[in-house]
Amino acid sequence: MDHNAAKRLALDLMETAEAAIVTTIAPEGFPQTRAMFNLRRKEQFPGLTSFFADHQNDFWAVFTTNTSSAKIAHIRKNPRVSVYFHIPREFRGLMLSGKMEIVSDESVKESLWQKGWERYYPAGPHDPDHTVLCLRPARAQYYHQLNFFVFEL
Amino acid sequence: MDHNAAKRLALDLMETAEAAIVTTIAPEGFPQTRAMFNLRRKEQFPGLTSFFADHQNDFWAVFTTNTSSAKIAHIRKNPRVSVYFHIPREFRGLMLSGKMEIVSDESVKESLWQKGWERYYPAGPHDPDHTVLCLRPARAQYYHQLNFFVFEL
Repeated sequence: MDHNAAKRLALDLMETAEAAIVTTIAPEGFPQTRAMFNLRRKEQFPGLTSFFADHQNDFWAVFTTNTSSAKIAHIRKNPRVSVYFHIPREFRGLMLSGKMEIVSDESVKESLWQKGWERYYPAGPHDPDHTVLCLRPARAQYYHQLNFFVFEL
Repeated sequence: MDHNAAKRLALDLMETAEAAIVTTIAPEGFPQTRAMFNLRRKEQFPGLTSFFADHQNDFWAVFTTNTSSAKIAHIRKNPRVSVYFHIPREFRGLMLSGKMEIVSDESVKESLWQKGWERYYPAGPHDPDHTVLCLRPARAQYYHQLNFFVFEL
């Protein structure tokens, strides 16, 4: 498999993986991991395909979360994170890392908003407890069975 | 759901999750994540059930890996790790964190050895490139849909 084919498969994984596995650094320096919605997953979020249209060839990752969550406290103190997408039975995994940004643009919250999210953010997209996060990774590496690729970013 | 029921479900998740998602801290302090074999997964490693028999009520996690791998270099420099088990479609996740130990007892390598691992460690269980890792976590937290539990350890 050449480098371009690997990159294509890695980007495809980002659009199909069931969850995004996000790790922050907790106080005392321990990594802390949780699954988050993978908003680039086309099957689950077809309404966001146009939002991500300009990012089909990059590893831009966007998340929504509760402002009051532990991860936001961690990121404010130390923005270093990893984001992992994988399909265990296929031995495929994409690992991104870099500094997570807290997005302050309120219009992005509206663009990302999905029906039903009142369950998490009762006041809607502009609920003060609704925060958008964005990772433009500094590192992207892809495992495919016993092959390993690092992409230029 | 009470605390004991949650602990039972968390331990059950550890014995059924398709993979263990292990995060180390890479140089410059970025988390780095990869999937590893979940050796407590009974369906996949039935031969190890007796090895883990004394650990049915705790969150002890054991791994085998290549001594030459990046994760070993990370752990030697900074042993802080997280280990995550989850079933995305059920919104269940178990997060363990603590300091990963490198196990020097050679007999453990024999006890864990599985048919076919010559693919990864050509010289067998005592291959110098075969290393066993063990996490006795300092923290264990379990997410079950919108519920969240922290267990005493």
